[in-house]
Amino acid sequence: MKKMSWKEFGIIQNELDEFEDYLQNLLDSRQSLVKEAISNLAQAGGKRIRPALIITIAHLGNYKQQQVWNFAATIEILHMATLIHDDIIDESHLRRGSKTVQSKYGKDRAVFAGDYLFSLAFNVLSDQATSKQFKIVTDVINKICESEIQQYQNRYNYSLSYRDYYYRIKHKTALLFESSCALGAENAGFNQVQLKKLAQYGRYLGMAFQLTDDLLDFKREKVKLGKPNANDFTNGIYTLPLLYVIKEKECGQDLKELLSEAKSNKDEIREFVIKNGGVDYTLSIAKKYIKKAQERLEHFPNNSYRMVLTALTDKILAREF
Amino acid sequence: MKKMSWKEFGIIQNELDEFEDYLQNLLDSRQSLVKEAISNLAQAGGKRIRPALIITIAHLGNYKQQQVWNFAATIEILHMATLIHDDIIDESHLRRGSKTVQSKYGKDRAVFAGDYLFSLAFNVLSDQATSKQFKIVTDVINKICESEIQQYQNRYNYSLSYRDYYYRIKHKTALLFESSCALGAENAGFNQVQLKKLAQYGRYLGMAFQLTDDLLDFKREKVKLGKPNANDFTNGIYTLPLLYVIKEKECGQDLKELLSEAKSNKDEIREFVIKNGGVDYTLSIAKKYIKKAQERLEHFPNNSYRMVLTALTDKILAREF
Repeated sequence: MKKMSWKEFGIIQNELDEFEDYLQNLLDSRQSLVKEAISNLAQAGGKRIRPALIITIAHLGNYKQQQVWNFAATIEILHMATLIHDDIIDESHLRRGSKTVQSKYGKDRAVFAGDYLFSLAFNVLSDQATSKQFKIVTDVINKICESEIQQYQNRYNYSLSYRDYYYRIKHKTALLFESSCALGAENAGFNQVQLKKLAQYGRYLGMAFQLTDDLLDFKREKVKLGKPNANDFTNGIYTLPLLYVIKEKECGQDLKELLSEAKSNKDEIREFVIKNGGVDYTLSIAKKYIKKAQERLEHFPNNSYRMVLTALTDKILAREF
Repeated sequence: MKKMSWKEFGIIQNELDEFEDYLQNLLDSRQSLVKEAISNLAQAGGKRIRPALIITIAHLGNYKQQQVWNFAATIEILHMATLIHDDIIDESHLRRGSKTVQSKYGKDRAVFAGDYLFSLAFNVLSDQATSKQFKIVTDVINKICESEIQQYQNRYNYSLSYRDYYYRIKHKTALLFESSCALGAENAGFNQVQLKKLAQYGRYLGMAFQLTDDLLDFKREKVKLGKPNANDFTNGIYTLPLLYVIKEKECGQDLKELLSEAKSNKDEIREFVIKNGGVDYTLSIAKKYIKKAQERLEHFPNNSYRMVLTALTDKILAREF
């Protein structure tokens, strides 16, 4: 799977390329065994959406490169750590088109490779962050861990409420987007009102991101994903497309029955959810979040950086990556 | 299993009891699901050796309670996080006499309960630490993770060198003792020379602690351990008592053969190692480290707090806990 292209975001593309070297250098200069375990993930090239957010938002204000790259690296390394540990729980074998750390090196090394990245991230952050900025990051990691435990407990529960679902995706994804934007805004030197608007932009963008990510499970093609589709519902993680059909449609009962043998009914479940409007409904919700995200940008000067932030909202909706 | 008694350390006993409430409060005031997963470990009552070290060393100098309790809680929470993740790797079912998080709640929740504690620890630390103090902690966690990965890779390798073994126990245990003492010394306001001496005291104490911990595997009685004995060598973790017999004794070859069926030969291996001097040799090395640790205290005023630090060295040698 190729790295996400930032070509359409010309104004930050060069900086993101340079940042990539900086990030690789932080990950590289460490012990060989760990390096081996994490290099696959690192080189497979994440989308680097969170660093892009932080850097772009910093440019909206009084951008200070050293600190902003530090923040961006911290968040991306933390994101990588959570991916490695997520894959242990999900028993995933593919991530970004490559074998996961746990399937290649075993759960054991995956646990410590993730831990290593956690402490590396905080190590990096301690170079530049104030106590307040530090708390932004540690708070969100605490919340992510709590919600991962909860998600695991709620597996195979198709009585999950919408509220539970939104709580889950907020914690799983949106909060890290939100704190990325808050860190960018901190670097930019914005006041509290502006900071809050940008943090909300991040949160709504993150909600849309996770909603469209959850949709991927119901896509017919597998090529672009770099990970197997239908991985969620076969593992008992029930997302909005599915919950919608169960809750809103008379045929919901039939879907529950199909889910009792989710693995063998995989294709049928997918078609059933699409046919009964689960995908369309989820997409409409994602669009609402995108709209809310865009509104939060309205009071900022309409320069090239703001245009990147707007373009990003459209890109997420299309999920061309 | 009972909490370690600090009765013989009258001078810090009350403070440690109060600190325990402070620590429980930090662990308690969080989400119920996580609480449930970690409360067992927390309540089973660790020995709190690391907090005791930090607090006692701070009292040797210009003790500042708020910061020193913060440091002590950080280190203890990090220690708990590594225990939870260690148990996943070891597939341990008992820890401190209670079922481990992973055996009670599954590996999945154990991964995130550990992650939660990692981020909680850094969250707590960010209240009080300078950037330098922060790095002391994140560096040591990085090293612990690296060595855990290495330990896993070296499983079932009885050609392990003494050097590899000492490297492992230094990283696994001694470095966290060392940084505990360094943090205590930072709080006390000691100069670099004094700080180094106290850090070395911690390192040597930690080496002795791990050596005697490794001896527990060869004890005949299981009662005091709160965890199953013979857990190391049946899992392919070869420690000094065993390596000594393999390297130094002609009968080493016989031991290797016994190890090929370690689980069924458990009792025989234990007796074989004891009979051929593996336990005595390891104890003699532990005593050397204890002596070196004690020497590092010589230049400090011989007050009640220094006496606690000395008493601790003897206590570790006896491992009456």
